[in-house]
Amino acid sequence: MNMEQTIAINGRTYQWMKGPTVVVCCDGCQYEYISEAIAAGVAPFLSNVLSNGSSLMADCVVPAFTNPNNMSIVTGTPPAVHGICGNYFFDRDTGEEVMMNDPKYMRAGTILAAFADAGARVAVVTAKDKLRRLLGHKLKGICFSAEKADEASIAENGIENVLDLVGMPVPSVYSAELSEFVFAAGAKLMERDDRPDLMYLSTTDYVQHKAAPGTAEANAFYGMVDRYLARLDALGATIVFTADHGMNAKHDKDGRPNVIYLQDILDDAIGQGLVRVILPITDPYVVHHGALGSFATIYVPSEKIRQDVISTLTKIKGVELAIGRSDACSWFELPPDRVGDIVVISQKDYVLGTSVERHDLSELKAPLRSHGGLSEQAVPILINRRIPEEATNRRLRNFDAFDLALNHSR
Amino acid sequence: MNMEQTIAINGRTYQWMKGPTVVVCCDGCQYEYISEAIAAGVAPFLSNVLSNGSSLMADCVVPAFTNPNNMSIVTGTPPAVHGICGNYFFDRDTGEEVMMNDPKYMRAGTILAAFADAGARVAVVTAKDKLRRLLGHKLKGICFSAEKADEASIAENGIENVLDLVGMPVPSVYSAELSEFVFAAGAKLMERDDRPDLMYLSTTDYVQHKAAPGTAEANAFYGMVDRYLARLDALGATIVFTADHGMNAKHDKDGRPNVIYLQDILDDAIGQGLVRVILPITDPYVVHHGALGSFATIYVPSEKIRQDVISTLTKIKGVELAIGRSDACSWFELPPDRVGDIVVISQKDYVLGTSVERHDLSELKAPLRSHGGLSEQAVPILINRRIPEEATNRRLRNFDAFDLALNHSR
Repeated sequence: MNMEQTIAINGRTYQWMKGPTVVVCCDGCQYEYISEAIAAGVAPFLSNVLSNGSSLMADCVVPAFTNPNNMSIVTGTPPAVHGICGNYFFDRDTGEEVMMNDPKYMRAGTILAAFADAGARVAVVTAKDKLRRLLGHKLKGICFSAEKADEASIAENGIENVLDLVGMPVPSVYSAELSEFVFAAGAKLMERDDRPDLMYLSTTDYVQHKAAPGTAEANAFYGMVDRYLARLDALGATIVFTADHGMNAKHDKDGRPNVIYLQDILDDAIGQGLVRVILPITDPYVVHHGALGSFATIYVPSEKIRQDVISTLTKIKGVELAIGRSDACSWFELPPDRVGDIVVISQKDYVLGTSVERHDLSELKAPLRSHGGLSEQAVPILINRRIPEEATNRRLRNFDAFDLALNHSR
Repeated sequence: MNMEQTIAINGRTYQWMKGPTVVVCCDGCQYEYISEAIAAGVAPFLSNVLSNGSSLMADCVVPAFTNPNNMSIVTGTPPAVHGICGNYFFDRDTGEEVMMNDPKYMRAGTILAAFADAGARVAVVTAKDKLRRLLGHKLKGICFSAEKADEASIAENGIENVLDLVGMPVPSVYSAELSEFVFAAGAKLMERDDRPDLMYLSTTDYVQHKAAPGTAEANAFYGMVDRYLARLDALGATIVFTADHGMNAKHDKDGRPNVIYLQDILDDAIGQGLVRVILPITDPYVVHHGALGSFATIYVPSEKIRQDVISTLTKIKGVELAIGRSDACSWFELPPDRVGDIVVISQKDYVLGTSVERHDLSELKAPLRSHGGLSEQAVPILINRRIPEEATNRRLRNFDAFDLALNHSR
């Protein structure tokens, strides 16, 4: 390798890193978490970034969910290109809801894999294992999850004995420590002689679903994040810190969740079982959000019913937008074959459900906070380097993170 | 008349008023104006309404502009029914931009005129004369503007000597007093022996465009409003207080307006003059907002160019949504023949312009505040009566104001 080399992938060109480069995707990092932590005095490194580095805002991908945005960040493209627009889509041919956690659903390669193929040392650490296989698709390098850190092997993950390296036990999947493990592993990897040239760290939003910005729990989390970022910075890394999506309170003043049960409403208004509501946030981990987010897609059997559904939804409290597949896929840059006939987005303080009996809210221990819609689209991009203004005179996306890190950081 | 009579109009039924009834449309009344005025102790009446009356939130019509929403409130319908979806539309046949201030563009009658026809004494006072002719369409009653209060005549307005009645001179069209005149006139009318059975008061958002919630100027305005509402309440009126739209800051931290000049951008990207951007906020009164709002519609010559425009707009900072006419008219309930091929909405802190040279910002004396998009859709509905909960378990619209006043107030 020489420093003049560039990597072209998915229609964009990235310059070879001048030093170790870290992109952090902090799950559910609404900007206020950072400003409150700084105000509380627990985030001196981030405070310094605001003064001496670059503090930008960007739009994430809608649906403002974890997988679509992580895949956008590591490919530098919207879901229309990489194909992952949620955790689930509905296969009309088989009549089944299909989980998109498998790399076979990816339609674009990652920047990470492209750099690794060109000889860069690449490492990926993610909180949950569900994302690990997508992020590590065709990647020659290190890629493991905190959740299954004890199972990491050279063959599967490019690394072994992770617990010894990190010096932490495997955390609970529902814990702040799951994210801390990601940062701790990243710092340890960066301290090794064969440190990564390019590293991607992706956390979980367990804390953000529970704790509002400025609360003790949130500030403690961002204090932890700040300390690890400072370590990475001290090790000479260029750091781009962004988020997959924002996070907002989705409950009334008494703490009850504001849920629009779309399947129930449409079964009543249109006809039992005539339409199918898909919530692409649905995944096996439901304790922190009960599969309730602010984005849904609906499959309908006819154009007449499509119009009836939209007309019905104009009367429902908390719905912000309901539009057809074509317009939704054009504007949000989604793959039309994996989106329903209607896309529904709820207002800032509302979430969308299917049927009352299909959501187990008994595990929700705190007033619901969630994400998915236009209200969670704005996310921070903080960089411990100066970015020239001409590189920011555009609609910045969180999936410009590698572009900013590699092409514009000074 | 007897109290059992009902009035059916535009597909809804309204009970005859049990006492004098006043609907107030407070232009640009973002909820925070009220909460801040109450917190500052200058709005004791509204504070009492929050405790002992009803405090609700409703969605206004998008485009969140004055005329569409005033017409929705007085007809009880969305623009798809009444036809007024802005100040301007583009007539493809003649190639001209057509102003919709003339009642001939109205496709529905008003609740006001219907009650007047049935024998109710009806009075309408509006700040600017531009709205007076629309509100007074086919109305047998009193209807005049503060702006032209000195010209009011029995023949044209159902009243004369308005300045003597109100005891105020004609205010400047750019002043808080223009709105105060509306309230003062309303109170005086309500004190007369032949007081109105039904009254509609509509103010101007000159103050709201200049002053943020909680500022001295805003609090002074809402203190004034509060005193007149208290007078109307003391006179026994049922009062429903709502807004045509919200209001948000549309500038950067240095006070410069965040403007997306759509015509310039599209002339560059698509071809000079190929598409036509219409800003339905445009009107002859530009001092307070420079014809800059958060909603625009675009006319294009072909489907290919329509797609190119939307694709171009996905790259532009501050655009929240760009969708086609069909979806926009279905969701926002707009008349398709008066909307362009694309509807564009900007983010909370951005506005949409045409070309730099077509906006005179020299008259903007304060950092820009404006409205028009999804971010300004939530407005308060305050009522000095109890509303049963079953009447509010729906998506409330500001155009449910007469329904709440006449059918649900206790």
